[in-house]
Amino acid sequence: MERLYKVSEVARMLNVSTVAVRKWIRSGKLRAKRIGKLWMIPESELKRFLGEKPGEIRAVIYARVSSHKQKKDGNLDRQIERLRSYCSAKGYKVVDVVTDVASGLKEDRNGLQKLFDIVEKRQADVVVVEFKDRLTRFGFDYLKRYFESHGVKVEVVEEAEKGCMEELVEDFASIVVSCAARIYGKRSQKYKKVVEVVEQAVKDP
Amino acid sequence: MERLYKVSEVARMLNVSTVAVRKWIRSGKLRAKRIGKLWMIPESELKRFLGEKPGEIRAVIYARVSSHKQKKDGNLDRQIERLRSYCSAKGYKVVDVVTDVASGLKEDRNGLQKLFDIVEKRQADVVVVEFKDRLTRFGFDYLKRYFESHGVKVEVVEEAEKGCMEELVEDFASIVVSCAARIYGKRSQKYKKVVEVVEQAVKDP
Repeated sequence: MERLYKVSEVARMLNVSTVAVRKWIRSGKLRAKRIGKLWMIPESELKRFLGEKPGEIRAVIYARVSSHKQKKDGNLDRQIERLRSYCSAKGYKVVDVVTDVASGLKEDRNGLQKLFDIVEKRQADVVVVEFKDRLTRFGFDYLKRYFESHGVKVEVVEEAEKGCMEELVEDFASIVVSCAARIYGKRSQKYKKVVEVVEQAVKDP
Repeated sequence: MERLYKVSEVARMLNVSTVAVRKWIRSGKLRAKRIGKLWMIPESELKRFLGEKPGEIRAVIYARVSSHKQKKDGNLDRQIERLRSYCSAKGYKVVDVVTDVASGLKEDRNGLQKLFDIVEKRQADVVVVEFKDRLTRFGFDYLKRYFESHGVKVEVVEEAEKGCMEELVEDFASIVVSCAARIYGKRSQKYKKVVEVVEQAVKDP
């Protein structure tokens, strides 16, 4: 059955007031069904209103680099370009590009939060990322299931287990530091030894 | 506004066929609104039908230990008991207890998948866990946001950053092994050195 949206839901999705939505309904611009005392807007009508062709796949691109240096070097832009080409080849309509300059270990990245909002408002049908680690270092399956529960798919362009090796090394070092600190305490000999060995290994890989 | 459920949604939530739901509606056991050609069931009516008092908070307990040895030692049962006491003190109605015997690094645990189903079907209002790491080693914030997007809260009984230290040590070792293998390759000297040092540190903490 087709999904029906409340006036308040439509208002939130379009980022307008409920008064504006009711005005559109009254003027006939947006067709709604009267259900008891309520107006409900069918999904197909909402899409028509937004000028989307039925069957068109709306993609949101998510790209991430871990440092401002990488961004300055143009890595972020090139990542976005590759993702745009991919979407264009697949016939997707790119409705948004969301970016972050932060570690994939950081769970409260600004861009990622914005992506969550887009997913929950169903403003896209698919999230496109280059590698799994662009979306997150850990918890990829959690995000996949979360997005799918809102009808949004995740598409990973390069499924092979790679990604930015330099960044994996950095993330590895920061995991070692934070885990070892919790386990042994920062003042212990053991902590110093573990961190030292890993830092040494990381320095000249 | 009150949420309305489709017949198919109610059928999925109660794990019965749509035919059964329509039978209840026809017989007057379940009150539904006629909306166009559809029957929609208001949330309050669904709650009444299920015999839930309005305002009652439904809790699902999630408990986890990492090994069968721990389970045999009664650690899982004690964890559940503590969570039951907590729910009872808070006046929550425990509607389900979901458990796993697996690492918190494993994202596709059976119990966790079941918990996701419960959350998506809104069969509970709150998920209660003892420590953050019982739910997951990484990605807690992702799961929190995922659950909240379906109207389900996560409640952590012990907010202090602790949990099972023994397990953190194990998880730490397995992260080191998997990261180092990806970075250096399993045959490299560097891999052997890093793993050896960490295993040594882990053996006698």
